[in-house]
Amino acid sequence: MTTRNEPLRAAILGATGTVGQRFVTLLAGHPWFELTAVAASERSAGKLYRDAATWIQTRPIDDAVAAMPVRTIDELMDRDFDIVFSALDASVARDVEPRFARRCLVVTNASAHRMDADVPLVVPEVNPDHLSLLSPPEDGKALPAGIVANPNCSTIGLVLALKPLADAFGFERISVVTLQAVSGAGLPGISSYQILDNVIPWISSEEEKLEIETGKILGRAAGGTIEPAEVAVSAQCNRVPVVDGHTLCISVDLKGEPAMEDVREAWRTFRAEPQERGLPSAPAQPIVYLGDDEPPQARVHRDLGHGMTTSIGRLRECPILGYRFVALSHNTLRGAAGGALLAAELAVARCGRRAA
Amino acid sequence: MTTRNEPLRAAILGATGTVGQRFVTLLAGHPWFELTAVAASERSAGKLYRDAATWIQTRPIDDAVAAMPVRTIDELMDRDFDIVFSALDASVARDVEPRFARRCLVVTNASAHRMDADVPLVVPEVNPDHLSLLSPPEDGKALPAGIVANPNCSTIGLVLALKPLADAFGFERISVVTLQAVSGAGLPGISSYQILDNVIPWISSEEEKLEIETGKILGRAAGGTIEPAEVAVSAQCNRVPVVDGHTLCISVDLKGEPAMEDVREAWRTFRAEPQERGLPSAPAQPIVYLGDDEPPQARVHRDLGHGMTTSIGRLRECPILGYRFVALSHNTLRGAAGGALLAAELAVARCGRRAA
Amino acid sequence: MTTRNEPLRAAILGATGTVGQRFVTLLAGHPWFELTAVAASERSAGKLYRDAATWIQTRPIDDAVAAMPVRTIDELMDRDFDIVFSALDASVARDVEPRFARRCLVVTNASAHRMDADVPLVVPEVNPDHLSLLSPPEDGKALPAGIVANPNCSTIGLVLALKPLADAFGFERISVVTLQAVSGAGLPGISSYQILDNVIPWISSEEEKLEIETGKILGRAAGGTIEPAEVAVSAQCNRVPVVDGHTLCISVDLKGEPAMEDVREAWRTFRAEPQERGLPSAPAQPIVYLGDDEPPQARVHRDLGHGMTTSIGRLRECPILGYRFVALSHNTLRGAAGGALLAAELAVARCGRRAA
Amino acid sequence: MTTRNEPLRAAILGATGTVGQRFVTLLAGHPWFELTAVAASERSAGKLYRDAATWIQTRPIDDAVAAMPVRTIDELMDRDFDIVFSALDASVARDVEPRFARRCLVVTNASAHRMDADVPLVVPEVNPDHLSLLSPPEDGKALPAGIVANPNCSTIGLVLALKPLADAFGFERISVVTLQAVSGAGLPGISSYQILDNVIPWISSEEEKLEIETGKILGRAAGGTIEPAEVAVSAQCNRVPVVDGHTLCISVDLKGEPAMEDVREAWRTFRAEPQERGLPSAPAQPIVYLGDDEPPQARVHRDLGHGMTTSIGRLRECPILGYRFVALSHNTLRGAAGGALLAAELAVARCGRRAA
Repeated sequence: MTTRNEPLRAAILGATGTVGQRFVTLLAGHPWFELTAVAASERSAGKLYRDAATWIQTRPIDDAVAAMPVRTIDELMDRDFDIVFSALDASVARDVEPRFARRCLVVTNASAHRMDADVPLVVPEVNPDHLSLLSPPEDGKALPAGIVANPNCSTIGLVLALKPLADAFGFERISVVTLQAVSGAGLPGISSYQILDNVIPWISSEEEKLEIETGKILGRAAGGTIEPAEVAVSAQCNRVPVVDGHTLCISVDLKGEPAMEDVREAWRTFRAEPQERGLPSAPAQPIVYLGDDEPPQARVHRDLGHGMTTSIGRLRECPILGYRFVALSHNTLRGAAGGALLAAELAVARCGRRAA
Repeated sequence: MTTRNEPLRAAILGATGTVGQRFVTLLAGHPWFELTAVAASERSAGKLYRDAATWIQTRPIDDAVAAMPVRTIDELMDRDFDIVFSALDASVARDVEPRFARRCLVVTNASAHRMDADVPLVVPEVNPDHLSLLSPPEDGKALPAGIVANPNCSTIGLVLALKPLADAFGFERISVVTLQAVSGAGLPGISSYQILDNVIPWISSEEEKLEIETGKILGRAAGGTIEPAEVAVSAQCNRVPVVDGHTLCISVDLKGEPAMEDVREAWRTFRAEPQERGLPSAPAQPIVYLGDDEPPQARVHRDLGHGMTTSIGRLRECPILGYRFVALSHNTLRGAAGGALLAAELAVARCGRRAA
Repeated sequence: MTTRNEPLRAAILGATGTVGQRFVTLLAGHPWFELTAVAASERSAGKLYRDAATWIQTRPIDDAVAAMPVRTIDELMDRDFDIVFSALDASVARDVEPRFARRCLVVTNASAHRMDADVPLVVPEVNPDHLSLLSPPEDGKALPAGIVANPNCSTIGLVLALKPLADAFGFERISVVTLQAVSGAGLPGISSYQILDNVIPWISSEEEKLEIETGKILGRAAGGTIEPAEVAVSAQCNRVPVVDGHTLCISVDLKGEPAMEDVREAWRTFRAEPQERGLPSAPAQPIVYLGDDEPPQARVHRDLGHGMTTSIGRLRECPILGYRFVALSHNTLRGAAGGALLAAELAVARCGRRAA
Repeated sequence: MTTRNEPLRAAILGATGTVGQRFVTLLAGHPWFELTAVAASERSAGKLYRDAATWIQTRPIDDAVAAMPVRTIDELMDRDFDIVFSALDASVARDVEPRFARRCLVVTNASAHRMDADVPLVVPEVNPDHLSLLSPPEDGKALPAGIVANPNCSTIGLVLALKPLADAFGFERISVVTLQAVSGAGLPGISSYQILDNVIPWISSEEEKLEIETGKILGRAAGGTIEPAEVAVSAQCNRVPVVDGHTLCISVDLKGEPAMEDVREAWRTFRAEPQERGLPSAPAQPIVYLGDDEPPQARVHRDLGHGMTTSIGRLRECPILGYRFVALSHNTLRGAAGGALLAAELAVARCGRRAA
């Protein structure tokens, strides 16, 4: 059993892909978690991490991780971890994650179990209380067992932008058109020949995810399950030749016809549990409102708050739904590894493992 | 006076920019128009066209035009033309175009006079009858005097996609989010440093143009003016790193809740006056419906029908407005020079200058 | 046996990839060849071509081909063809191509057999006489059996630019740095996440191919084999975020210190056997010299001569080797399917099947 | 007079452009320099900096600078500064810089005076002793008067890569082909319509700068002037669609035919005066050799050492000059503002203003 201030033993499943690489980068020097194993597909297993990963992060690989042998997932099944970060493909995650989840906390970026009734789908600033679906840690365990899912990368920016509006005003209808970066498709992901000088106005299952996950995240935890929010979401998703950063054009029908200044104020004053608890990966400001005339831009604003801040701009009237604006969120930081890590930190803090 | 089958004498104002270059390319070998002069800013005047233009078309400059001297606009004021194609900036067009329009037909891509009460804003397949705003040609003239305006490049794709739906069903609300190519901003236009690896979710005045022009184009010509259609348009415009081709994500509330198959059928069977008259620049199919699962893509589909065909795909239910789809239109061909040329051809044909 | 003017029966191996798609496009309506079968990997076999191919050409699929069933390579082994176009991966081509080559002419874009002693590596304007390595057609056959290989896409632009200089002056040392388009890597090829906002200054085996193929192509056919030219080639290859078109920065030590004007003249006056024979795919000008101050640009010039013309510009002194210039060649037209098709046409014409 | 540890009063000329913005960012919180004024063109003068600059850095503008009024250059002429950083265009710099240089130190990124006999053209790790061209500070002055020039952005990567080889082996001939980022052209710089899906194999005056500056920088300071190194440089420059980072393909004829391992060792062990003096902007490693099989990539490696480290990889034999490799340098950090700032720090340290 780990004592209160020992580092928590962590593993990464799917460690060589784009999200896996981001987990590796973010866990380097993390104050709470110690990366003790990395797993990937059979093709990579047996190699050192530095040889198995086509490293494409701008920060070099942490030396200790670079020299780690890559394991198969099966090899990790028998080992003891406090927490497992999953960057697996959904098809693999479906079977693998529940097996780990019997023994430890699995924080996953995969979509396989997001809509499971007993799996909290968590954006820490939006629905931290959904973690109550997890049972308390068993005796001798540092953390609860179970799965905590990170939503789809484009959903996260949407619900972060909407949360202060949900709290302050409420709404029933959302229209969102996304312009999504190629990194969201992982590696190899989109072929360069397909996306250079092009827009692909379709992303497999993405619209469905946005439309269904939004309701769950904005819903209420009650009686061991989540009652989804009643909100109609129309999503149209586009892939654009951008490296990182999803841009969202959002319209919404805020209740009570609030003044524009009140809407801006709702965003500007927004703080949430991760900020209050001072979680290591929590940005000082989860949301920045840039200005009515200042659009959030992928390359310019995606790294705000170390890629954890959602930028919003161009609030204005919508002749259809009443209110329109543009939001931007970093899809592999806040939208994947960074968001999952923050959810993990929240889960740790909530079960009393670390002081605020 | 030109006789019936002599070529019509044409000039291009603003001939060295991206739209001007497209006019030059399209007029090379045109069966009706003969390019007899090119004008540009003081900076270019006096040079040969080949030296004045930073030529960026894939087709080489027509030899005859390459050797033409570039004139100032003032130098052209005293010369005789049947038709003037204007690719001027709006600020210059405001004063210049009316001066030419007293003596000949001005077909313009500039926005300056689009919303003038007496100026038809024409997409030939959508509102050919708006040309009735022009008076008949004066004695001894081949063509009417006056201004015919080409709408904004993103408006054109929108109204083309909507026209068959307006005819078959009608609607009151449209929501459109655009992903627009950089060529729409002309030269120098958007700096490469601003748009590479980026999305700019704002284009100066573009949303206003889309929202207001759509009503005029879909409106009715009556009593020497245009009664705009009553339709609420919400437009959100984005610049993306694409060379040519505007992608539009469109939602619309079709009246009578037609079956999806009826909507597809409306597009598939659509033909209009330019096709019936066999205008030289008219595409065989103004609209192609690609399929429910086949999204129109900028690089793949923009050149359909020599860049004059609007591609549509992904028709599906919208939880907000009822119907959603994606459309794509070439912004410097159909959306600028090609569209203006087709409007010119329509004006010529309508006043009996050329047989169908 | 086919008679003299019947179309030659053709098949494409690897028909669904980028080069295969180009073959399909170029063979549509070809005056000599009739596409009678398409083959691809097991994954595609059994589907209709339109469903098996992720079509990314701007010209729609020819209707007849769209409806063709995709076969496995083994299924084609027993059928009768006059000519087989191979767009296979080198690893597959190694075994497959010789099996077809026993019975018919195989014109291949794969690298597997390029350096085989008995395989002509042909750029039709550069070394047409290397086709003499093929034996004459057997009785009852329209074409010789055997393999004709198309060189590497970057080699082709290099040797085309050099051929007139080899004829007029000779040289011993060549330095070439390439900036290569992503289409050269096929599909899926380079991940968009790797190449957007990036240069990858390495392409697997590309430099070796350029350095070794150049000598063979510029060599002499003698005694049933090729005596390579004695030339030292230094190649450095880079992948850049460009769709189509390889740019080559070339330095060369021309013998006899010719005047710059003589070098330009050598390019300007260059014509070769494909032009003399009037082959269907031969460009009027295999080489265009754009000017001392006009650099060939990928997007602007790659389509000259239907993608079969090499553009050259910026001839100037090199302080190291004496002469420098820039060349551009379309890598999937001249550099792959178009070049292979022209070589096939040359082989057909050389054995008397078609008049000039 | 400023005392030894007071901050040095700094101004930026041309503060709103891309290099000016980088100066603003780098001077925020600088331990030695305090930005006290910003100047730009007449068009910007009078506005607050935040309104005058089209800010495109990922780090937000420092608050104090955002609120600074932008001055004209003339307005700064009468004010007192210890140091002026110039990001002016060469045409403006020609007259302006000498006027400031009579009274204070001007560290410039402009090309106007780079080749002046009395102006040190300094890359701090390469030729720190060229600063000896400056006279010692006059009484009452903290720093010398005069101009210190930063070389061209592509030259800097070249000479940094070559310096260890010059020290260890020497050479006489260099061939370099560059693939340069668009940020090197400033704002508006290259139009996006020109560079998307394109390579432009020409940059105005760039090859000349590379060829001539290299000799000066690698030359010897003697008798109040610089005796250029005797080295033949062949440069071919290309603009590619990359945001930041210049890639250089370099060949060189090292004397004495050193073993490859000795070449790598020369790079690996390289340290220089900025590292020894611990200058604030000096990277721990001015050069990183990535590996024989690891090419430096613009997006992946440009930010190493906060954009001040030159990455090198792919050392191998060159059949023409003997040795080949690829180098990468950040063009607006090391290649412009960062390099100039490091040169300024070196000048300060060399005249005893700050301890090592």
